[in-house]
Amino acid sequence: MEEKMMELFCAIAGRRSIRKYSGDDVCEEDLRRMLDAGRMAPSWVNFQVWEVVVVRDPKTKSALAATLPDTNPARGAVESAPVVLVACGRKGESGCKKGELATVLGDWLMFDVALFLNNVTLAAYALGYGTVHVGYFDQKRAAKLIGVPDQVQVVELLPIGRPLEPAKYVSPRRAIEDFVHREKY
Amino acid sequence: MEEKMMELFCAIAGRRSIRKYSGDDVCEEDLRRMLDAGRMAPSWVNFQVWEVVVVRDPKTKSALAATLPDTNPARGAVESAPVVLVACGRKGESGCKKGELATVLGDWLMFDVALFLNNVTLAAYALGYGTVHVGYFDQKRAAKLIGVPDQVQVVELLPIGRPLEPAKYVSPRRAIEDFVHREKY
Repeated sequence: MEEKMMELFCAIAGRRSIRKYSGDDVCEEDLRRMLDAGRMAPSWVNFQVWEVVVVRDPKTKSALAATLPDTNPARGAVESAPVVLVACGRKGESGCKKGELATVLGDWLMFDVALFLNNVTLAAYALGYGTVHVGYFDQKRAAKLIGVPDQVQVVELLPIGRPLEPAKYVSPRRAIEDFVHREKY
Repeated sequence: MEEKMMELFCAIAGRRSIRKYSGDDVCEEDLRRMLDAGRMAPSWVNFQVWEVVVVRDPKTKSALAATLPDTNPARGAVESAPVVLVACGRKGESGCKKGELATVLGDWLMFDVALFLNNVTLAAYALGYGTVHVGYFDQKRAAKLIGVPDQVQVVELLPIGRPLEPAKYVSPRRAIEDFVHREKY
């Protein structure tokens, strides 16, 4: 096994949202390393509510792509990526104490699934793959397509593939001074 | 400036939730590197809804600690850490298209704030600091304490400090086979 190494800050600064992929596959060994990175994420009371459906079947990918609005530029990404993860979270656990919601924020499943996915996307980048978070689609239709039960919430689609070309563009980021407040808001 | 380097997969696998800190400070340069890692996170339509209050004042930290239930083991962490971040998200932007909620999942601010915080905690670990996600507290009281306006949601507290001792324990994680489904759920 070839050991891929990337410095953390390089990974964080270099990752881009990638929507066009070469025809190259995502090998199972690399996919496993991504999922392994994901599962190391922390979570509410260590409940690890994430559930992931790995989709490689072209028919299923096309059907999932059809759950995106025409206006979503990631539609082609879902259709053409060799692998699409359907990232889900079990309902009614994260954010709860003794089965009751513990904060005004309701279910924390989106928070925990995001921690998981952030690790996956960084790992994918370090291994030479591109990903893009796709949240703007019909979660209910997607759930029905792949048989996700009612007690599990579909959150996002994450296409994964080798980038067709290097990312040319960095989405501008807010300056630190712009979002950081000191002592008081 | 001493350049701290850590390989991505080492950072992801090595990070632990740390609740006890040495008396050492978090220097502004390191804090800046953590916040810089945070702001590189992707977000819904690149809205970057994160807002962060950096708290160093011991009185404010004690007051924030008092918003945690007695049963939360992180109470001492919030009180004793040299820096506590109050991580917030602007409401009504993430998860929206043209001002309307775009998915069944409502506001995606928790998702985006989690992506931001995951980068912050990995960066902190690479720089030799410990952190712990604190979500179980009274967000409304905390907001009032530090003057967070109604249109901004307090999500979590993130104490940051040098670990008092090396983490001895790894919270067990689910096996990949346990949360990964193939083609169908």
